[in-house]
Amino acid sequence: MAKIMAVNAGSSSLKFQLLEMPKEQVIAQGLIERIGMDDAIVTIKFTANDQAAKNAEVEVSGEKAKFKTVTAIKDHQVAINLMLEKLSELAIIADFNEIVGVGHRVVAGGEYFDKSVLVTPDVLKKIDELADYAPLHNPANALGIRAFQALLPNAVSVAVFDTSFHQTMPKVNYLYSLPYEYYQKYGARKYGAHGTSHRYVAGRAAEILGKDLSELKLITLHLGAGASITAVKDGKSFDTSMGFTPLAGVTMATRSGDVDASLVNFIQTKENLSNEEMLTVLNKQSGLQGISQLSSDMRDLLAAREENEQADLAIKIFVDRVVRYVGQYIAEMGGADALVFTAGIGENADWVREEVIDRLGYFGITIDKAKNDGCREEADVSAADAKIKTLVVPTDEELMIARDVQSLMA
Amino acid sequence: MAKIMAVNAGSSSLKFQLLEMPKEQVIAQGLIERIGMDDAIVTIKFTANDQAAKNAEVEVSGEKAKFKTVTAIKDHQVAINLMLEKLSELAIIADFNEIVGVGHRVVAGGEYFDKSVLVTPDVLKKIDELADYAPLHNPANALGIRAFQALLPNAVSVAVFDTSFHQTMPKVNYLYSLPYEYYQKYGARKYGAHGTSHRYVAGRAAEILGKDLSELKLITLHLGAGASITAVKDGKSFDTSMGFTPLAGVTMATRSGDVDASLVNFIQTKENLSNEEMLTVLNKQSGLQGISQLSSDMRDLLAAREENEQADLAIKIFVDRVVRYVGQYIAEMGGADALVFTAGIGENADWVREEVIDRLGYFGITIDKAKNDGCREEADVSAADAKIKTLVVPTDEELMIARDVQSLMA
Repeated sequence: MAKIMAVNAGSSSLKFQLLEMPKEQVIAQGLIERIGMDDAIVTIKFTANDQAAKNAEVEVSGEKAKFKTVTAIKDHQVAINLMLEKLSELAIIADFNEIVGVGHRVVAGGEYFDKSVLVTPDVLKKIDELADYAPLHNPANALGIRAFQALLPNAVSVAVFDTSFHQTMPKVNYLYSLPYEYYQKYGARKYGAHGTSHRYVAGRAAEILGKDLSELKLITLHLGAGASITAVKDGKSFDTSMGFTPLAGVTMATRSGDVDASLVNFIQTKENLSNEEMLTVLNKQSGLQGISQLSSDMRDLLAAREENEQADLAIKIFVDRVVRYVGQYIAEMGGADALVFTAGIGENADWVREEVIDRLGYFGITIDKAKNDGCREEADVSAADAKIKTLVVPTDEELMIARDVQSLMA
Repeated sequence: MAKIMAVNAGSSSLKFQLLEMPKEQVIAQGLIERIGMDDAIVTIKFTANDQAAKNAEVEVSGEKAKFKTVTAIKDHQVAINLMLEKLSELAIIADFNEIVGVGHRVVAGGEYFDKSVLVTPDVLKKIDELADYAPLHNPANALGIRAFQALLPNAVSVAVFDTSFHQTMPKVNYLYSLPYEYYQKYGARKYGAHGTSHRYVAGRAAEILGKDLSELKLITLHLGAGASITAVKDGKSFDTSMGFTPLAGVTMATRSGDVDASLVNFIQTKENLSNEEMLTVLNKQSGLQGISQLSSDMRDLLAAREENEQADLAIKIFVDRVVRYVGQYIAEMGGADALVFTAGIGENADWVREEVIDRLGYFGITIDKAKNDGCREEADVSAADAKIKTLVVPTDEELMIARDVQSLMA
């Protein structure tokens, strides 16, 4: 048995999950927020044990224990060191060396990485270089890798790329209609994102359908704060809605999704925005938030939609953009066997699934309302006569990361 | 009987067609190129008459006559004056005053114009103001209107907007997922283009199908150097592929169509391009030209595709982007009764139609190859068992303009 940690490092945060492999059992999960501040927050959730009850900072509720502390944390290395010490103190691990492998989510893998890899100095260098494609994420991901390598020098270190699943896209689908030299010189092409999630739910969908993944045409809908839709054909990503960066595609919580490229400079000029400010507008102030001027959260919009026209409009636009991509991918693949809903909205918002499916009846995509209502778990919610199935599959990127670490350790 | 002129004025060119209405008969058509140069070219094609044979600058071939001259032309007013004088000299018109109405194509009508209108000083002012949305076109369109008004003060002057047909799009379809204030302050939304063409071919398609336009779901594919696809539902534009400007949508001759908005500043920074230069790249150096690095013309690409990988790739990307929009619009409308191909490629490139339709068999869109091959005229080229029909309808924007002028004169 081996303990493997799946890590998602942001610029001022770090999410982790510790799994017992190959049992695929989650031992602990946690979050460190506000790294670099005097009031950073460390949270660890785990199964209650004897040690937990004795710790003043642990709240126990039945089998569940939650550790929380607020303290000054200078940088990622301090954060990770503290987290590991707490895992030890709370008797979740006996010793740092119990953690034999660490898998790191890395946002941009460019064309270098079509699968997860052991981190070598060369791999780290490439991740640094790819910061151009994910300026907010890759440097933070690299920071996380370096800090873990310093603290757990004996653990295997693996990079799992958000983009690698999409490296199977044919050139016709990933190339933009720009001067070809921009692709050659700068790698200007579609890379997609959420690859680990799309890969996981596509695999589960095949199991649920009792078919070989390589025989299926699936449309996987990862609908969370970030949202992307992937056409998975023969088990491979065939096309995906995110683009050169995770800005493109459907409407998201605060990201614009697809817009006419000529609007970028038009708005910058009108509003006197720098490139960086414009990127912030497109990534942080657009989407559901931008349309509704109320909230980036689907739940708030649902609560407000009856009396708030903008909230209703934001929801309808979100649903419409999802419908567009479903139609597009049915056309591109020449059919589909199933839609697979996942992530925050896809798993939990039964009403969003219903509004999307309501518009897709022409394709023979219909749900059993009784099955869909309230469903937040893995399920086939299709109507009995549905021509194309509708599945709900909670995503598990951490499990995929742990599996990739394990397979690379073998 | 009334002679009406349909005009399309560019910054250094002017296309016109003179029609006898309501007979809808083309009397003459022509082009003035290189306005502002010492070697401007005036071409007029018309039905041969006695006068034509006597003119040294006229070439007669059977019933067809073609006048051509090269001369210095200072500005649009000089160009139009010369053109009218030549129409007189060539006995196409007896007198300037025979032209009772002039209809002008105007590219951007914003939200002001949901139909063609008589040009008033206020309308002209609005066209000037809308230059923001079509910086290359609207000022030239306004120039053409003013020059004709000066030379034919008694003729009715009508503005026919490329965007007005699309003003019926629901807000869910025309709004981008950007901060809502950009829509309110700057009209940042989807306007579409080629409206006059989509309107014309949709009307013809209904006639061919023997159905009321208001009962049909059509996908009109205007595929020329500029290309746009429109979902026409109940006789109204429901959605269209061009956006805030005619840059967005499918791959075009030299325009990029849809690209991730975050690529704009990325490329500008890498290539050190000004906003204006970037707009030139996206509009003039992208599309088929940009991908193939060979030609923006489909015919050249077809000729080269076997030995030139980039030419083949450009064609496949073009076909793919068309397929995407067809799927998207079938999803958005919940079905379709017919696809309607028009414009340079849509009317003439039977092989492009075939490659597009070949990918749409899943939807029951199939053609009769014998009917499609070589077809350049109005025709239903569907296979007998096609679930969704495929029509070819040569567009006639000039006729639509003349009809709009006539109906506003009544």
